[in-house]
Amino acid sequence: MIDIKQFQVTGLITILSLVLFYILTINVGIARAKYKVPVPQITGDENFERVFRVQQNTLEQLIMFIPALWIFSIFVNAIAANILGGIWIIGRILYAWGYYIEASKRFLGFAISSTIALVLLLGSLIGIGKSLFNL
Amino acid sequence: MIDIKQFQVTGLITILSLVLFYILTINVGIARAKYKVPVPQITGDENFERVFRVQQNTLEQLIMFIPALWIFSIFVNAIAANILGGIWIIGRILYAWGYYIEASKRFLGFAISSTIALVLLLGSLIGIGKSLFNL
Amino acid sequence: MIDIKQFQVTGLITILSLVLFYILTINVGIARAKYKVPVPQITGDENFERVFRVQQNTLEQLIMFIPALWIFSIFVNAIAANILGGIWIIGRILYAWGYYIEASKRFLGFAISSTIALVLLLGSLIGIGKSLFNL
Repeated sequence: MIDIKQFQVTGLITILSLVLFYILTINVGIARAKYKVPVPQITGDENFERVFRVQQNTLEQLIMFIPALWIFSIFVNAIAANILGGIWIIGRILYAWGYYIEASKRFLGFAISSTIALVLLLGSLIGIGKSLFNL
Repeated sequence: MIDIKQFQVTGLITILSLVLFYILTINVGIARAKYKVPVPQITGDENFERVFRVQQNTLEQLIMFIPALWIFSIFVNAIAANILGGIWIIGRILYAWGYYIEASKRFLGFAISSTIALVLLLGSLIGIGKSLFNL
Repeated sequence: MIDIKQFQVTGLITILSLVLFYILTINVGIARAKYKVPVPQITGDENFERVFRVQQNTLEQLIMFIPALWIFSIFVNAIAANILGGIWIIGRILYAWGYYIEASKRFLGFAISSTIALVLLLGSLIGIGKSLFNL
């Protein structure tokens, strides 16, 4: 039997990924003011649009990352989950600050975090599958 | 006292819903190339826009589905949660491949997954309410 | 050792925040019909765009709120988490119905829920940090 309170590091990784998202969200507000894109508009200046896409894409990734991180941590291996989670955060930082400079500089960070997400998802699938069917 | 490790099937349903989302996200990238909609743009070709809306709408549904699935599973009934979760995934597949063909073909799948989300939310509300107030 | 089944109130707060999101999502559908913005379009009438932004912004906030609420509740203090969660929901209601009237009326509700999210994130960071390093 496991105690959810043992998953402190998985909790910490989750919070750090959300602190990053909080900062990316503040950056959208700053870009709105700087490039004069008033709400409720979400287009109009390519510089704003890149900052907005960074936040939106990170949201799309977070909906996969957080549940997959926890399921991998609980049902497969907590230490591996936490290391993968740390790399995911680094990938997202590279993605954001790359994309802020120019659209073509988003690839490395995107590839890192997308690959980590896939490893967490497929690792969870295999781990739970093995356990369910007693392989 | 419950052991979170018993919720393997709920974990599996969660991972399967996210694998679907991962595929829908790849489809957006493919549609960007096919219909020539460069980042950071999100409009410009109606065919791209439908593929993008499928992903965005599934994101909006996942933020409700995953927490509601787990809360229903833990606080109400795990087997019912898992069956409802499986139907939700089927609904989302029908939604995506319907909408990919044309906008009017999204209704059946949308209705299935929206109804499941409502059942999970209201079922959780009633289940927790009953338990809290000892009804 | 904790029992996840004790976190009924945190479950209830989560479900209530998602019921709110479900209603905000229905409002987008109603606004589509009222202001004649057919799918897959997401722009075209400023009245529709405000209703859409309310939903999208709430989605961006929920991805932080739900994980942070649970991590604060489990690793820091459940009663404080639940009170903060209740205030977050009130903030989001003020935000939505303010923004529905006009864009400038969104600030109070936005400030309340953003501040709560920050308290949940930083509180979790400090709480887990203290525990990990035996401070």
